Amino acid sequence: MNYILLTPGPTPLPPSVYKVMGEQILHHRTAEFGVQFQFVLDEMRYVYRTKNDVVMLTTSGTGAMESAVVNLLSPGDKALVHQTGAFGERFTKIMKAYGLSPVVVDEVWGNAADPEKLREALKKNPGLKLVTFQHTDTSTGVVNDLKALSAVVHEVQPDALVVVDSISGLGAEELETDAWGIDVALTGSQKGLMAPPGLAFAAVSERAWKACETAALPRFYLDWRTMRRSLPKKETPYTPAVTLVAAQAEALRLIREEGIENVWKRTAELAAYTRAAVAKMGLTLFAKDPADILTAVNLPAGMDGKKLIKDILREERISIAGGQLHLEGKIVRIAHMGWIKKADVDAGLKALSSRLQPTHA
Amino acid sequence: MNYILLTPGPTPLPPSVYKVMGEQILHHRTAEFGVQFQFVLDEMRYVYRTKNDVVMLTTSGTGAMESAVVNLLSPGDKALVHQTGAFGERFTKIMKAYGLSPVVVDEVWGNAADPEKLREALKKNPGLKLVTFQHTDTSTGVVNDLKALSAVVHEVQPDALVVVDSISGLGAEELETDAWGIDVALTGSQKGLMAPPGLAFAAVSERAWKACETAALPRFYLDWRTMRRSLPKKETPYTPAVTLVAAQAEALRLIREEGIENVWKRTAELAAYTRAAVAKMGLTLFAKDPADILTAVNLPAGMDGKKLIKDILREERISIAGGQLHLEGKIVRIAHMGWIKKADVDAGLKALSSRLQPTHA
Repeated sequence: MNYILLTPGPTPLPPSVYKVMGEQILHHRTAEFGVQFQFVLDEMRYVYRTKNDVVMLTTSGTGAMESAVVNLLSPGDKALVHQTGAFGERFTKIMKAYGLSPVVVDEVWGNAADPEKLREALKKNPGLKLVTFQHTDTSTGVVNDLKALSAVVHEVQPDALVVVDSISGLGAEELETDAWGIDVALTGSQKGLMAPPGLAFAAVSERAWKACETAALPRFYLDWRTMRRSLPKKETPYTPAVTLVAAQAEALRLIREEGIENVWKRTAELAAYTRAAVAKMGLTLFAKDPADILTAVNLPAGMDGKKLIKDILREERISIAGGQLHLEGKIVRIAHMGWIKKADVDAGLKALSSRLQPTHA
Repeated sequence: MNYILLTPGPTPLPPSVYKVMGEQILHHRTAEFGVQFQFVLDEMRYVYRTKNDVVMLTTSGTGAMESAVVNLLSPGDKALVHQTGAFGERFTKIMKAYGLSPVVVDEVWGNAADPEKLREALKKNPGLKLVTFQHTDTSTGVVNDLKALSAVVHEVQPDALVVVDSISGLGAEELETDAWGIDVALTGSQKGLMAPPGLAFAAVSERAWKACETAALPRFYLDWRTMRRSLPKKETPYTPAVTLVAAQAEALRLIREEGIENVWKRTAELAAYTRAAVAKMGLTLFAKDPADILTAVNLPAGMDGKKLIKDILREERISIAGGQLHLEGKIVRIAHMGWIKKADVDAGLKALSSRLQPTHA
């Protein structure tokens, strides 16, 4: 029995993506796979809006985040993490696991990163090797103004690399990797990219490649240098998830067909529609700077959000995400990126709205 | 157009495994996924013949190998790598990437690990934290006598952990994780386990968990401790490759249906059949201690093995592996594990045999 997936990843898959996964798998050391792999990398460059080399990992998004840390930093290096939710905190945790002590700029959950706060932090902490941001943070539903943030980094500390986690943003929210001066843009296959989870990507600038050559943190499976050396052969260093590569190729074909600007526009329109519907229900948004990928909604005080989510899943087979960490039970998060359609969002909104009535009665 | 896959991973998939990948993907934080994930871990214990905890990674097999290194070792620790081919060398490379200097016992390619050579090396190098072996090495087609090797380690250095890469062996060659005293057994989804590549597993003994708690090499995405903490919730710490988990669940259902001993028997019979056919062609085996998972065949002197492989793929759509590194062009490797059937092997043997004639003429 099917259900409606309104969770922020994995998101629903287009029918043709399911279809290609039923086709015979390719061996990864063949010309046929090489063509498909090269297509994925080329189309990823299109989605990223970059001319930089893109590398592919067989990992979740977290593997991509760790790959940026280990490929760019050495013991003792200084880094700044601008945290706007649970996924910003993940960068901090990864760096600490490698013995680093990043400078952390913390925003109140629901607020986007403040460029002026960033400027102050950059001035106070000279000699940073890199600065990390989330593009969007699914835990809070905010979108960060990467163009402005990146410009501040380049102005105040021109030697620092700009590293962006766009795992939930890419292929849904506007991102201009090259035009905005983003050195490393990370993403995962299972959100805006409309493929199943299990693949991750990094677009890496020449400045970042230089840092990678001298970075001394240990790495093997996540080593971008090995991946780059395999690119001319149209291969990956280790057996990739070939089924997911075929799925990603098909999803990227659909994105190209629609045009990336149209994808951004469609996502923005569905987000605006969702926000208006939520306001009509008398509910407020959690995010002060709401993203287009998903809408985080404050639940009425006293409502048991954990039960609500479970009820909706069991009774209507609609999968809506709740709040994470201290927001558990207090908010719901309705995604509207990738293959999620207006009818799906409508079903989710209706399920939510019908369960609000008793508390008002 | 379909083709016959005789490569040692990815191996062909059973039709029902393709089918489940066409079904709607599950969100990884749901009870439904939890049931499927738990099934996979339970059935993996059945295939591993272990009562130990099994953890699952979204990586290639190489990620699992690295996970054993980073979860068990600290800077300065002593380890021994018994190399019987390209994949043994990979353990050495990973350890070196983390600043370790393993003791390497090298066998001539094609020979299995010699227990007496191991005994001498263990006596000469006291205080080892762990010893690694390959179960089978697809680069050479050998199988190692893990029962004997593990017994020697436990006898000479009872404190050393026995770590086995069974990425190509599990689900094809006999493996008794608990009975043979194997502390860590690593594997990947794409060979005997009959699922696509992208998932990896580690069966970890209590002794190894103790080592994991104090091991000081840095890790985050590959950290077994985080994975173990998520087991009671039937979850993974990070978004897993849910499509591949569904595929693995179905493939494990098929293995249980057949019975693991019957899988071993069937694989051994197909291997014996292949070896006899090769001998009949007047060709010799590369491996002195041939595995049941694949047969490595010496090509007649002067024959261009690289061209042969390409010709067979292009003209007959049969994918046979050639030699790796210094064996490139000199051997071919015909896999007969997992879903590979006698008819597939026959087609491969015929393609090979028909191309041998001209050189004899």
